Amino acid sequence: MADAKLPSGGPVDAALIEDLVAASRILAQHGVLDAWGHVSMRHPSNPQRYLMSRARAPALVTIQDIMEFDLDSNPVDQRDRRLFLERFIHGGAYKARPDVNAVVHSHSLTVVPFSVTEQPLRAISSVASFLACGCSVFDFHGVSRTKGLLVTNNEQGAALAKVLGDKPVALLRGHGNLVVAPDIPRVVHRALYTEINAKQLATALSFGKPIKYIEPEEMLDPQRLGDSWDVWKHDAMGGN
Amino acid sequence: MADAKLPSGGPVDAALIEDLVAASRILAQHGVLDAWGHVSMRHPSNPQRYLMSRARAPALVTIQDIMEFDLDSNPVDQRDRRLFLERFIHGGAYKARPDVNAVVHSHSLTVVPFSVTEQPLRAISSVASFLACGCSVFDFHGVSRTKGLLVTNNEQGAALAKVLGDKPVALLRGHGNLVVAPDIPRVVHRALYTEINAKQLATALSFGKPIKYIEPEEMLDPQRLGDSWDVWKHDAMGGN
Amino acid sequence: MADAKLPSGGPVDAALIEDLVAASRILAQHGVLDAWGHVSMRHPSNPQRYLMSRARAPALVTIQDIMEFDLDSNPVDQRDRRLFLERFIHGGAYKARPDVNAVVHSHSLTVVPFSVTEQPLRAISSVASFLACGCSVFDFHGVSRTKGLLVTNNEQGAALAKVLGDKPVALLRGHGNLVVAPDIPRVVHRALYTEINAKQLATALSFGKPIKYIEPEEMLDPQRLGDSWDVWKHDAMGGN
Amino acid sequence: MADAKLPSGGPVDAALIEDLVAASRILAQHGVLDAWGHVSMRHPSNPQRYLMSRARAPALVTIQDIMEFDLDSNPVDQRDRRLFLERFIHGGAYKARPDVNAVVHSHSLTVVPFSVTEQPLRAISSVASFLACGCSVFDFHGVSRTKGLLVTNNEQGAALAKVLGDKPVALLRGHGNLVVAPDIPRVVHRALYTEINAKQLATALSFGKPIKYIEPEEMLDPQRLGDSWDVWKHDAMGGN
Repeated sequence: MADAKLPSGGPVDAALIEDLVAASRILAQHGVLDAWGHVSMRHPSNPQRYLMSRARAPALVTIQDIMEFDLDSNPVDQRDRRLFLERFIHGGAYKARPDVNAVVHSHSLTVVPFSVTEQPLRAISSVASFLACGCSVFDFHGVSRTKGLLVTNNEQGAALAKVLGDKPVALLRGHGNLVVAPDIPRVVHRALYTEINAKQLATALSFGKPIKYIEPEEMLDPQRLGDSWDVWKHDAMGGN
Repeated sequence: MADAKLPSGGPVDAALIEDLVAASRILAQHGVLDAWGHVSMRHPSNPQRYLMSRARAPALVTIQDIMEFDLDSNPVDQRDRRLFLERFIHGGAYKARPDVNAVVHSHSLTVVPFSVTEQPLRAISSVASFLACGCSVFDFHGVSRTKGLLVTNNEQGAALAKVLGDKPVALLRGHGNLVVAPDIPRVVHRALYTEINAKQLATALSFGKPIKYIEPEEMLDPQRLGDSWDVWKHDAMGGN
Repeated sequence: MADAKLPSGGPVDAALIEDLVAASRILAQHGVLDAWGHVSMRHPSNPQRYLMSRARAPALVTIQDIMEFDLDSNPVDQRDRRLFLERFIHGGAYKARPDVNAVVHSHSLTVVPFSVTEQPLRAISSVASFLACGCSVFDFHGVSRTKGLLVTNNEQGAALAKVLGDKPVALLRGHGNLVVAPDIPRVVHRALYTEINAKQLATALSFGKPIKYIEPEEMLDPQRLGDSWDVWKHDAMGGN
Repeated sequence: MADAKLPSGGPVDAALIEDLVAASRILAQHGVLDAWGHVSMRHPSNPQRYLMSRARAPALVTIQDIMEFDLDSNPVDQRDRRLFLERFIHGGAYKARPDVNAVVHSHSLTVVPFSVTEQPLRAISSVASFLACGCSVFDFHGVSRTKGLLVTNNEQGAALAKVLGDKPVALLRGHGNLVVAPDIPRVVHRALYTEINAKQLATALSFGKPIKYIEPEEMLDPQRLGDSWDVWKHDAMGGN
């Protein structure tokens, strides 16, 4: 599938690549990404391309590891680099959602329990109000199932994107989640606060009393995420 | 609203400003403040003014970031600095409570679950006996609701202060809490132990047996908080 | 009460003092001691004396902070040093239990929930088999109650020691615990694993099924604690 | 039992020894091994020998601490070194399972609660799909019980291996677990994700709704663990 002649979307501003690397390290540092999760961003000049690290633990990703892919998740210039098996999650999301410019796939600790029961994951904290509309659970219905519940081809990636619909988060049964956003700081915010809200909801559920969720009309998509991005990047990259 | 001619409450001892900065960093380091919470103190010479950082992640706040506000939360000298949207929480508390000289607003992890159920948050640990009198939950009754459940004007700030009453802590439904105290070391102690007591109470509730709370007559407002302040400041500021 | 003429139990080997300091720091580092807990040891040459830090956060204690007390908790040589209000917990335990040479008082996070419900704290992990015989809860029955539930005089210290009986651990209702042992490494082990076993038991209880506790006849008092002491001291003191 | 004439299995590649040391430190750093757990590997040239540290806290193990044992857990060359009392867990597993080349014994925090109730520990996360076949609980049935529930002789080691059967993990009642794998990176992965899956399952169980476990036919033994091994070793050993 990989085609040596697949054209690149063109050069990308080094500061944007650095933010993609920072996103990977931030989410590793906060325990949202384990050794196998990944972050990507849509190519800023060509919406038919996206950028993602070669297969590597997120905490170790550097600028040199970032590669370019088309939306079928073929690498533009693979050379001898190993690719993430599940990159089709990213390609599928970019293809189905023109509004999406950043994608995270994680095995986030407290997201998994919600993916294996009928207990819905919904927002109880205003910082996670993006979850007020709820999130669906993907389980390979209508497509072939890969062992280990991995998403390893475009058919599965498209099926997952369909379950995601127009929402910011979908769960993968017994596996983790898919988080999408219009930009990198926002996808980091959403991936982190999906986990935090899941922890808080698990505690609230343990009280055994009715829960007052955030209603969709109470949702606010934060307009300025610079404050959180500054401190997260500072901690993950060791400087301002 | 911001008026260039709004007079300052006068110069403030550098050691007091440093304690305000330390409070911000201590609560960030202990996970009580995320990227968006804030701490303030009443101006020591003019009770109609309070001091608070410009909008910035609490872990990064420095002495240079501290600004002065009147009790309507207008900045004395804004220049080009961005302000916390929710500073009205602080102004409202100082206006309603002459005994209060320090205020924290946090999204403290285990406080949120108590804010979205009918499960009261009360003291089970003597170190948190300030919670023996319980705490009420604010939910915009009788005032306009801002998207994201934010407190962004003086009307909302006053309504929240009314829910707080004469107590040290109020919860904000689906959002976090407001913690007040007569001084900075005490507000840090209360913000931290509100979270710790919430965690402990969640565990105690999980046993499904009756709970013996701290009774109001068993409360003791600690007289000397120097020991905790020393070690928290040492850890947060990297020295004595 | 403090008497300038109270004679000292004599000089103490610097290595023993260092172990007492290490115990304080180890338990702070592992989150068992907060800013107000304390560790002590009986004087190695005079069983009527014990050694304990002046009032200071456990993480900051140094060799220079160690003071000497008689079993009524009068300081041998107070000078201008501030004393822990709750030192009577230690004096009471040494007086009642000749087999005890080391004492910890903590507000250990997961111990408090067990102290405020009828749920007994018992051993489910063999590393904490010292809890197989259970532990009683002290609540000021028959003695005056100090505000904040503090133990601030010898009458209360003696009453607590009576509740402890011949066991290694007693809980203080809404407050924390008292841990005793024949030596410093063992009291550190017991204080740490009381917390860990409490966490594990809380999880086991959440399954809602019968629990197979460690039976008293399965108890083993570990004969060699050098391995744990080595690594804990290494981490807390920054060396071997 | 130790025989000075017991022949060695021969020299072992330094890189393999380093990986065994790294495994010990990685699992200590991730909180899977406390001060008393241990990791071993089968001798690469002689399947009748295995390699394991002298008795020492896992976080402190160095290359110089690694010793050689026969499958009855006699040391090839003890000199004055102290041995782990529970090395028979390792010898018993190597003897019963020719496919096993690496063994971990831990007191992993969230594994213990599953060992003392009838609640089975099964996989709900695909990263832990090796647990899809479940794991049995060992409790000294048919063999003498050692105080402290320790496994201190070959009869007990063989009985535990029998309970393990052909699976990757067995629990020890009120004690911890035994984890086996064909190689060191895999045994580290399994020991770590047994704990993580246990935490996730405890949360899922708390919802009180039916759980969709990973089915055995959905299992995937990961083919490439290089990504996780790289980052774990990097963090534990301070470099690549």
